[in-house]
Amino acid sequence: MENICEKQYVIGLDMGGTNSVFGIVDQRGQIIAQTTISTKAYPVVHDYVKAGVEALQPLLDMIGGFENVRGMGIGAPNGNFYHGTIEYAANLAWGGVVPIAELFSHALNGIPVRVTNDANAAAMGEMAYGAAKGMKNWIMITLGTGVGSGIVCDGKIVYGSDGFAGELGHVVAVRDGRQCGCGRKGCLETYCSATGVTRTAREFLEKSDAPSPLRDLDPEKITSYDVFLAAEKGDQIALDIFNFTGEVLGRACADFACFNSPEAFVFFGGLTKAGHYIMDPIKKAYDENVLYNYKGKAQIVVSALKGSEAAVLGASALGWE
Amino acid sequence: MENICEKQYVIGLDMGGTNSVFGIVDQRGQIIAQTTISTKAYPVVHDYVKAGVEALQPLLDMIGGFENVRGMGIGAPNGNFYHGTIEYAANLAWGGVVPIAELFSHALNGIPVRVTNDANAAAMGEMAYGAAKGMKNWIMITLGTGVGSGIVCDGKIVYGSDGFAGELGHVVAVRDGRQCGCGRKGCLETYCSATGVTRTAREFLEKSDAPSPLRDLDPEKITSYDVFLAAEKGDQIALDIFNFTGEVLGRACADFACFNSPEAFVFFGGLTKAGHYIMDPIKKAYDENVLYNYKGKAQIVVSALKGSEAAVLGASALGWE
Repeated sequence: MENICEKQYVIGLDMGGTNSVFGIVDQRGQIIAQTTISTKAYPVVHDYVKAGVEALQPLLDMIGGFENVRGMGIGAPNGNFYHGTIEYAANLAWGGVVPIAELFSHALNGIPVRVTNDANAAAMGEMAYGAAKGMKNWIMITLGTGVGSGIVCDGKIVYGSDGFAGELGHVVAVRDGRQCGCGRKGCLETYCSATGVTRTAREFLEKSDAPSPLRDLDPEKITSYDVFLAAEKGDQIALDIFNFTGEVLGRACADFACFNSPEAFVFFGGLTKAGHYIMDPIKKAYDENVLYNYKGKAQIVVSALKGSEAAVLGASALGWE
Repeated sequence: MENICEKQYVIGLDMGGTNSVFGIVDQRGQIIAQTTISTKAYPVVHDYVKAGVEALQPLLDMIGGFENVRGMGIGAPNGNFYHGTIEYAANLAWGGVVPIAELFSHALNGIPVRVTNDANAAAMGEMAYGAAKGMKNWIMITLGTGVGSGIVCDGKIVYGSDGFAGELGHVVAVRDGRQCGCGRKGCLETYCSATGVTRTAREFLEKSDAPSPLRDLDPEKITSYDVFLAAEKGDQIALDIFNFTGEVLGRACADFACFNSPEAFVFFGGLTKAGHYIMDPIKKAYDENVLYNYKGKAQIVVSALKGSEAAVLGASALGWE
């Protein structure tokens, strides 16, 4: 029998506004065990950390305890790599600046703990185990409730002067465009996030009289999956929604290429499940808009990690550093 | 008397389409001697290299010969750091891919030679000797015939997958805007380069009947210095030109902040000589448009290097690597 106690492991924590998933990951990038706690249930961060460590205990026992854990990586909203903190995260109950790395390290026998934001964690995972293996210069775009990004230059995540670099979801895609939650207008996120797609669906349904299966749905709740199902039936409005969304995204990526001349853009998140309906328009707009210097140099691909595992794997990748 | 032969030196070459300036630079960043040859006069690159080395010879004799030179750095249009080449430079006579580093190294007793593009060279100079001393994450914007950029992340120039990263002059500032020389529309360069300012001047003079000293000039040849002189006289059209140009530039920089959350934007080139007339609108537009995360974090400053020295110093900084 294999003696798993001789191995080295890391803990990966994918912290969401609702749930937190802890995973124990081995050196080959296998999640060998995982557990989930509610993030929301703990309005005091110390209680959250305590609950997390309690949930982790049986997993740690399984691998022979702390001494086999090299470190812990946390992917969290507004996670700051430099300071090991979560700073003013809108969708977490703990206000202000939370020294989350220190808290977990203290509760876990002093193991090193690193923090980054969710999109950077996704990029680390993709680089260690996914579509960006071996790549040195590339860009991760996460398409979720918001649009996030992880930028990699020379093999390293770009953290910038303050740890908050890489917010490509807030590059202005349409000058004086849609109102964004950040207070500005026309951010990429207002077009290509889940809510962005819902807004586009609503707008496109309003400005046309064409029949569409999307008309049977509550226009405030149309998801990119609904649009995908309609597209599968050949619905023109659904196709138009993906074409428009992909065009905005592809044009934006063409501009992003001017920063780090990437080998690839790797897309992650719900919208990518629409497959070629969204990826083809992204590629088309990218090719049409990118500077000649960069033409044909970047792959436009979807994450190679399973959605449920990517975030934990990504966070865990930080634990090896 | 100081024995300068004991010192270490580098050669910096600022290669322009018209002239090439060679400088011998010491470890304190002093250009101790320099010489110029015509770039245009040598349609064959081997002749150019030969002429350059001949021009350098008396300077090298002065410092005791090759053995006191650590290396050479070249800032050239379309210079490629990875390959030591100049690739398809539109304003040089030598077509295709020119192995310029190899040619100079061969002609200079095998000293190491590094190449980068002009904007990256400017950024290296600024970081070694100018306004960006000690900075790790910042962006250089060069405002000349075109708009160039050097992006610094974690203390290093971003070269990207192919050595051609950092072309922020070709990020689209105005969707479907002015025709750019690159074949696309609305690039930042079409608004904020020397010719961009001339175009703006012409447009603003055409759409108004207000008197302006700029009306006495050939509208095809108005320079940012002419606009500056008019602004000094209180001319409203001149002020409008700078306000417009600065707004486009400040808004673009606000987007660039999302990439590497810079400590500073350092501006270099003719347009910066307009002082507060251009810098104030840049700062205003930046503050109004930057994401709240980054507000108040980046300095917006002008290069601290003398124009005539900056390019040679910048190129020379590569020679120390």
